[in-house]
Amino acid sequence: MIESTRNPRVVRAVRLHRARNRRETGDTLLEGPNVVDAALSAGLVPELVFTLDRDELANRAAQAGSEVVVVSDSVMNKLAGTENPRGPVAIAAVPESGPVAPVDTIVLCGISDPGNAGTLIRSAAAFSFQVVATPDTVDLWSPKVLRAAVGAHFATGIVTGSSPEAVAAVGIGLVALVPVEDGSDEPEESARPIGLMVGNESHGLSPRLLAAASATLTVPTSGAVESLNAAVAGSIAMFAIAQGRG
Amino acid sequence: MIESTRNPRVVRAVRLHRARNRRETGDTLLEGPNVVDAALSAGLVPELVFTLDRDELANRAAQAGSEVVVVSDSVMNKLAGTENPRGPVAIAAVPESGPVAPVDTIVLCGISDPGNAGTLIRSAAAFSFQVVATPDTVDLWSPKVLRAAVGAHFATGIVTGSSPEAVAAVGIGLVALVPVEDGSDEPEESARPIGLMVGNESHGLSPRLLAAASATLTVPTSGAVESLNAAVAGSIAMFAIAQGRG
Repeated sequence: MIESTRNPRVVRAVRLHRARNRRETGDTLLEGPNVVDAALSAGLVPELVFTLDRDELANRAAQAGSEVVVVSDSVMNKLAGTENPRGPVAIAAVPESGPVAPVDTIVLCGISDPGNAGTLIRSAAAFSFQVVATPDTVDLWSPKVLRAAVGAHFATGIVTGSSPEAVAAVGIGLVALVPVEDGSDEPEESARPIGLMVGNESHGLSPRLLAAASATLTVPTSGAVESLNAAVAGSIAMFAIAQGRG
Repeated sequence: MIESTRNPRVVRAVRLHRARNRRETGDTLLEGPNVVDAALSAGLVPELVFTLDRDELANRAAQAGSEVVVVSDSVMNKLAGTENPRGPVAIAAVPESGPVAPVDTIVLCGISDPGNAGTLIRSAAAFSFQVVATPDTVDLWSPKVLRAAVGAHFATGIVTGSSPEAVAAVGIGLVALVPVEDGSDEPEESARPIGLMVGNESHGLSPRLLAAASATLTVPTSGAVESLNAAVAGSIAMFAIAQGRG
């Protein structure tokens, strides 16, 4: 059992909470039973799994080929980004982004809050949307985003470092999600896949991105508040589009 | 200008980040320009406003009757629950809960995450829903919940420490939001107000609460993930009910 937070493998894992270290190594941290379970079920085998007990999930990881090490409570507290973590925490290689597929897509254009990004990935998987992110969006494979998505990363396609142009290039129609109707065209009912662009929480979509869209979409509200939370607005729009497909 | 974090008024404000001190004093903290602006616009006058500059919002607060004090960056960092706060931070009395009104209502039954609670209040205001919370729900007037709702507390009715029974007692029909369809009755289209019950993020609605509902509602998903985020599910359900009303 590892009981020292200075153990080199523990140090290596803790460093992955920093974006720079994830970029340099290509690795990330999977935290909690839901995320680790979803990764294993999708065939992604973590390199190293830290666990408090040799439980069923730890055994599944070991059978799949992960190295499993039992750690003390204090080491688990150091490894995890949450309070009172029950584990496991796993080091895994970030899957490579595949090409953009010609299916309904949510395009994250500068989403900065990890909770919002994770929630949108969870909703995207629930409504059968692919997720594409621009380079100025928060790292979708950060431990915080993975936690917020509760395993949904492994249930839908995720393409990072991409652009609305790359989405349009495979025949997806770009639609801008905007908080207030601006009188431009609503998306037509069509069999063509939709690329729903969601902008930054504070600044929304830039004029350049708005100009790239062939239609805009607004979630109708009472007007009592200025806007909805970005993850809620994006999720409602995906729900509505999925209902229209249904 | 206050430059010491040991100033008694600063100490008094910082203590309000703790639930126990809010309960004992009946006060809370309003953080950020959106929340303070929304409070003032709704006629709620903070007792004390800490600000970095004597700006337009600070002047509005002073005219409304707030005491306004300018503080240094280090004091503002101590006062606020966020990094790099731009202020203001204000001490205000928590408004007293009024009675439950006979209108469409979201009933928060054990929501524990402040971000989810705040997001649901924001969506409730956007879709013209009253918010009722049970005693085991996170404190809706905590600074974190106020921040996540971005001022929506002052744009809809909020009743804390209440119950589904109190909601049903004014003629609102209770509907349980559940992640998976269980074959029970869907709510009928009716002019009667709906009381949408949303359960705890991990445990959902208790059997007792499920039994109190006359219908259940499920957000249809692809099944690729077990469930949606609680704030997203509640928001989509309010959106769908509001669309049906429209």
